[in-house]
Amino acid sequence: MKKVKISQRMTKPNFPADFLATILEANADPTVINLGGGMPNVHSFPVKAMEAAADKVMKKRGVMALQYSNAKGYAPLRDFIAERYRQRGIDVDISEIIITNGSQQALDIFSAVMIDPGDNVIVENPSYFAALQVFHLYDPVIVPINLNKDGIDVAQLEEKIAETSPQFVYMIPNFQNPTGITYSDKVREEAAEVLQKSNAIVLEDNPYEALRFEGRAGKSFSCYLGEQCCMLGTFSKTVSPGMRIGWIACKQKDIYDKMVTCKSAMDMHTNMFGQMVMYQYLKDNNFDEQIAETCKLYKHNAEFMLACIKKYFPEGAHVHKPEGGMFMWVTLPEGVRGIDVQAAAIKKGVAVIPGDPFYEYERNVNTIRLNFASFSDKIIDKGVRILGEVIRDLLHK
Amino acid sequence: MKKVKISQRMTKPNFPADFLATILEANADPTVINLGGGMPNVHSFPVKAMEAAADKVMKKRGVMALQYSNAKGYAPLRDFIAERYRQRGIDVDISEIIITNGSQQALDIFSAVMIDPGDNVIVENPSYFAALQVFHLYDPVIVPINLNKDGIDVAQLEEKIAETSPQFVYMIPNFQNPTGITYSDKVREEAAEVLQKSNAIVLEDNPYEALRFEGRAGKSFSCYLGEQCCMLGTFSKTVSPGMRIGWIACKQKDIYDKMVTCKSAMDMHTNMFGQMVMYQYLKDNNFDEQIAETCKLYKHNAEFMLACIKKYFPEGAHVHKPEGGMFMWVTLPEGVRGIDVQAAAIKKGVAVIPGDPFYEYERNVNTIRLNFASFSDKIIDKGVRILGEVIRDLLHK
Repeated sequence: MKKVKISQRMTKPNFPADFLATILEANADPTVINLGGGMPNVHSFPVKAMEAAADKVMKKRGVMALQYSNAKGYAPLRDFIAERYRQRGIDVDISEIIITNGSQQALDIFSAVMIDPGDNVIVENPSYFAALQVFHLYDPVIVPINLNKDGIDVAQLEEKIAETSPQFVYMIPNFQNPTGITYSDKVREEAAEVLQKSNAIVLEDNPYEALRFEGRAGKSFSCYLGEQCCMLGTFSKTVSPGMRIGWIACKQKDIYDKMVTCKSAMDMHTNMFGQMVMYQYLKDNNFDEQIAETCKLYKHNAEFMLACIKKYFPEGAHVHKPEGGMFMWVTLPEGVRGIDVQAAAIKKGVAVIPGDPFYEYERNVNTIRLNFASFSDKIIDKGVRILGEVIRDLLHK
Repeated sequence: MKKVKISQRMTKPNFPADFLATILEANADPTVINLGGGMPNVHSFPVKAMEAAADKVMKKRGVMALQYSNAKGYAPLRDFIAERYRQRGIDVDISEIIITNGSQQALDIFSAVMIDPGDNVIVENPSYFAALQVFHLYDPVIVPINLNKDGIDVAQLEEKIAETSPQFVYMIPNFQNPTGITYSDKVREEAAEVLQKSNAIVLEDNPYEALRFEGRAGKSFSCYLGEQCCMLGTFSKTVSPGMRIGWIACKQKDIYDKMVTCKSAMDMHTNMFGQMVMYQYLKDNNFDEQIAETCKLYKHNAEFMLACIKKYFPEGAHVHKPEGGMFMWVTLPEGVRGIDVQAAAIKKGVAVIPGDPFYEYERNVNTIRLNFASFSDKIIDKGVRILGEVIRDLLHK
């Protein structure tokens, strides 16, 4: 064998670097304060209750948990998810749900069904980098739209939809990743009005929805757009990310059916034991109570991290205070690049993620994303203090 | 919203129909004798031991099982897999293993890394239809090579390699799916010699390897070809398919690294709880003893099904007796189409899978694939008897 040819999708220059794999690797080093990752706080995991659920599933339905299942997912779990939507006034039927290997896989499946090479895809700017990464597997043209403090820039959205006829618009309206921004009711309404006139599907990603510790929930685009909106969800931020259980809710029948075919081609179905354990946990416990506990913890952490940033970061650093979720988005003083902060901080045992991979086109930006969820006060204080030193050093260079 | 455009990869005419999803759906109907699926016998599942493993994992390392992990997979499990290869004289290191969501996902990841649209991919004719299905997501040209009773047709392989410069050659050398054929040592050697002179990667799929109940194992292509050969494996046929835990072993560093990136883009990592439970099971139990029990059961089932076929099927039906695995490949009397048998049998409560989806180009073939693994003697007798009636009916039309 003389040479190996790797596919263009994995070698093209605009394929985002291995940021995600790198973060996951950094997680493995217990000496690093990893403010860069998206890990929930381990104290939010209902370990004992999951243990009881696992035991019950194996004792009562062990054979079913170990056997092949179907591509759509475990029916009682799909039913539970649909019912949760209906409780919030969102019309979803069990027949519209597919369980996926985390919502990351739902992004992959949706992309496979929707994107032909060269198709336009609208995203927020900045957007979730692992979404950009998976979209790029299918060779679209990414069209970023500015984010204002109250959500997507509707005028620009309208202009770009007219200009590019996008296949879909990917939005994270609640505690957006990475910025923490939540769309106002006004922006939701206006954006929905613009979208309604187009052929673009809205892909609404909502991983942090339950983690609201301030304010009041806005409406899903699904309420305005019906079958024009697909919704992603996950148990990764509320119960367990290691279980890899997420979903997509899709009313549009053609897309739904193709996604089921695609899911079965990609990995047949999501692990059955995990799905059954998750369902058993949800059935036997007070899910809302557990979420409320997590929100209390995250509210405290967010406020504590904000205080630390105020204390340790130099003037000129700004931060958006989120109403929920797990992330804080820091704009550094003019001229301080996120990638330089990342490089210097890791040498002092603190991992952060620079703004760069969240942008499709901009590089050397002066932003970093911090995870406030995962850590004790002591670790947050230490991590932010070290970051403050790193940023001051870079300012004086 | 006026219209929806689905991607070409999901709508092109040669995209295999939803056979897999359909089989998985058929599994859900307990009144159907489903000889069409690939389900292992539930009596082969170590339910009690898996229950103990799950309990141990949750009690001792619950937080780790529920938290995010890394894209390569759980290190002790990867180590176990590498060690099993070494015990069989195959040089594999832990650094060459990626855990996937079943080996089906390994096919997807490998394809994403290797296939550009229009690239040539060599497969056996017939080949595993879900592999054809996932390859087609990446728009290759499929080049089928005849299978003889002792394995792939080496002369034709040599000719087609010269003619098409394939990116890879996908082979299932042991108890091939669907034919049950096992490559002879001579064919392995000769094929390896031909492949060595090419730039094609060999993708060796080996899901049934452990399920040998007759004869002696031949060498892996990896022994001849080193880094030119990637190997797929799975615990689906030995421990549990519902857990969705498979792997790819890849020595070629560029391909390996890109596959890790791809895996993290696709779904971050395989469910951690499942990986840890699987490892705990393998560590605490005698895996070889469990496999030996399953082989005993499958040997009996294969012989019993052969006897039933002899008893019930009309003259002109031929069957290849496999040395292991789960499937029997039946050539029907001239003029009887597999799709007609399928259509008539399901009305009588028996599901089979016709030969058609296993072929890239041939249609209306006179073959069907039967699963002998999953059933009791009584069910096998009844299923084969009904099939015999159906085939006789079709013969006399």
